[in-house]
Amino acid sequence: MTMTSSTRISRLELLLAERRLDGLLVTHPANLRYLCGYTGSNGLLLMLDGRRVFFTDGRYTQQARDEVSGARVVIAKGTLLTEAAKLLGQVTSARRIGFEADHTSCLAAEEMRKLVPRRVLWRPTSGLIMRLRMIKDAGEQRLIRDAVKLGAAVYKRALRSISPGTAESEVAGKLEYAARRAGADGMSFETIVAAGKRSALPHGRASRRPIPSRGFVVIDSGVILRGYCSDMTRTVHVGSASREGRKWYECVLEAQLAAIATVAPGKTAGQVDQSAREVLRRAGLDGYFTHSTGHGVGLEIHEPPRLGKGQMEKLEPGMVITVEPGIYIPGRGGIRIEDMVVVTPEGCEILTPVSKELIEL
Amino acid sequence: MTMTSSTRISRLELLLAERRLDGLLVTHPANLRYLCGYTGSNGLLLMLDGRRVFFTDGRYTQQARDEVSGARVVIAKGTLLTEAAKLLGQVTSARRIGFEADHTSCLAAEEMRKLVPRRVLWRPTSGLIMRLRMIKDAGEQRLIRDAVKLGAAVYKRALRSISPGTAESEVAGKLEYAARRAGADGMSFETIVAAGKRSALPHGRASRRPIPSRGFVVIDSGVILRGYCSDMTRTVHVGSASREGRKWYECVLEAQLAAIATVAPGKTAGQVDQSAREVLRRAGLDGYFTHSTGHGVGLEIHEPPRLGKGQMEKLEPGMVITVEPGIYIPGRGGIRIEDMVVVTPEGCEILTPVSKELIEL
Repeated sequence: MTMTSSTRISRLELLLAERRLDGLLVTHPANLRYLCGYTGSNGLLLMLDGRRVFFTDGRYTQQARDEVSGARVVIAKGTLLTEAAKLLGQVTSARRIGFEADHTSCLAAEEMRKLVPRRVLWRPTSGLIMRLRMIKDAGEQRLIRDAVKLGAAVYKRALRSISPGTAESEVAGKLEYAARRAGADGMSFETIVAAGKRSALPHGRASRRPIPSRGFVVIDSGVILRGYCSDMTRTVHVGSASREGRKWYECVLEAQLAAIATVAPGKTAGQVDQSAREVLRRAGLDGYFTHSTGHGVGLEIHEPPRLGKGQMEKLEPGMVITVEPGIYIPGRGGIRIEDMVVVTPEGCEILTPVSKELIEL
Repeated sequence: MTMTSSTRISRLELLLAERRLDGLLVTHPANLRYLCGYTGSNGLLLMLDGRRVFFTDGRYTQQARDEVSGARVVIAKGTLLTEAAKLLGQVTSARRIGFEADHTSCLAAEEMRKLVPRRVLWRPTSGLIMRLRMIKDAGEQRLIRDAVKLGAAVYKRALRSISPGTAESEVAGKLEYAARRAGADGMSFETIVAAGKRSALPHGRASRRPIPSRGFVVIDSGVILRGYCSDMTRTVHVGSASREGRKWYECVLEAQLAAIATVAPGKTAGQVDQSAREVLRRAGLDGYFTHSTGHGVGLEIHEPPRLGKGQMEKLEPGMVITVEPGIYIPGRGGIRIEDMVVVTPEGCEILTPVSKELIEL
């Protein structure tokens, strides 16, 4: 089922009631988009005892009218916070008001405190809206599938441009241009193209350096399509891989498949991580696996759950996560293989439609 | 003069002493880059009574060794904050420790409080490092000039692709691809290409809509080159402009030139804004000028000073700012013209090397 803005806000109101909050101030852009469809950069949603008021400034008058649903739109003359404070002043029943402590700076919180009447008690909340966002509804899953498909298509396109001597940034540029032409809003993070020894950098953003004549190339990229992110990594080899290199690759792939096989409702995020780590441990390679196995993806590229060591968060149907173990051997090279998967009632479905066999170019 | 990391940190230590702070915890990425050259995403600098310790995690071991100067590098096993807290626990003279209240969420601040010994008093600071960053040294000015030149070159390239029927996103894609090929790290913000009636959206990110056969096209774009941002806007007209359109354009250009003529040390940010607004007021167009006249640019695309109504910040030599008045007439179209300028002892120098005469395509 796809939820409307109004349904999402109603579900959030239930969470507020559980916490005995009279209202909530929402300012984080991804949360504003999720709750009321607004895609601009300056906005604020005040939920107050059944009232739902969305504030923005004069630059976004038209956009707010076109996009916002589930809330009344007010174009603020002063700062959005001043305007919201005025409303808080008028609604005398408002006492315990939540704010997004995980997305509000200490400085902004201090300003908030000064602006509102004394009776208002600001209550820090964190991850409230994320709890809803973590489970993707049918409409969101469709949008994510579209983003993943586009991400895969532009990756395949960029793959053709990988050859010795070509700059990593040229490959990234081709990939990003293809994404733009295909209608992506943008990239979901800085494209990683890391070749040769640079493949041992887990976050080797595409540099101007040329791809060497032999070695691994890690390509980690994602697009944003109608607000939703994709994320995928493949590692290819320029020239033929050494026996050792091939063994490393197979081992990372085995770890990735083991982790995917573990994904199912009721399993913890940590168990999925452990499955990948265990395969690498048996091959004596776990010391080179220096990050966690994955993360949630949706309107933001990094969302909960985090698939890290010992994470107790339980997987649920509708969660969309990455599974991306990797090894990074200093001075030698690195390998990472990443798919996006959606948790289903039975286990999971792999969304990324790209082969994981080792490609030698 | 170009400052080294060590000089920058020393200057910051003077500001800490003025505020009777025994130390400072720096976490904002742009500030980390400014102070010690680190370009990764997870880092923390703890300045403590003459000690300067930089913490990062295992993914960035090599990068931190290559990049960080002016501080000792520690690869943290747990979270960076836990590791920093340990050091704070050992240095028993440490009592009043500042943190970046403008870049630390309430949630993170709460965690900080829990991690350190009771004697440590966390003190909110804001804009301390920005005060240093606001004045660009010779090396920074060179980097900014390079970024501005590249931004201008790719704009000119994209200009060639503007024609009726071409999607806005295609123009943006060409521009971004050219930036990548020329070695940009990325774009400094989402490229705006807003054609026809969409030009009346001050933040009309490039959409898939085709450029109509007649009307204004606003192109607002910027690149990041070796960490520094560029920012420029030009408005061109597809087909020949109406007499009224031409009048609007000339008026915005006059406002922009008046604002630039006002830029000089000792003038306030608000006076520059006022100059632009006054020109538009005389033409009865000030009601359509719905944003401020400009902002500082450097390692981040939006830095102080903000050139808005009544802003009392005084301009100083070495500041680099945008000057970008615009008008947006709903249902008709919009015009914005933006240069970057550096404040000099005598006035200012325009950095953006692109003509501002109205181009009809």
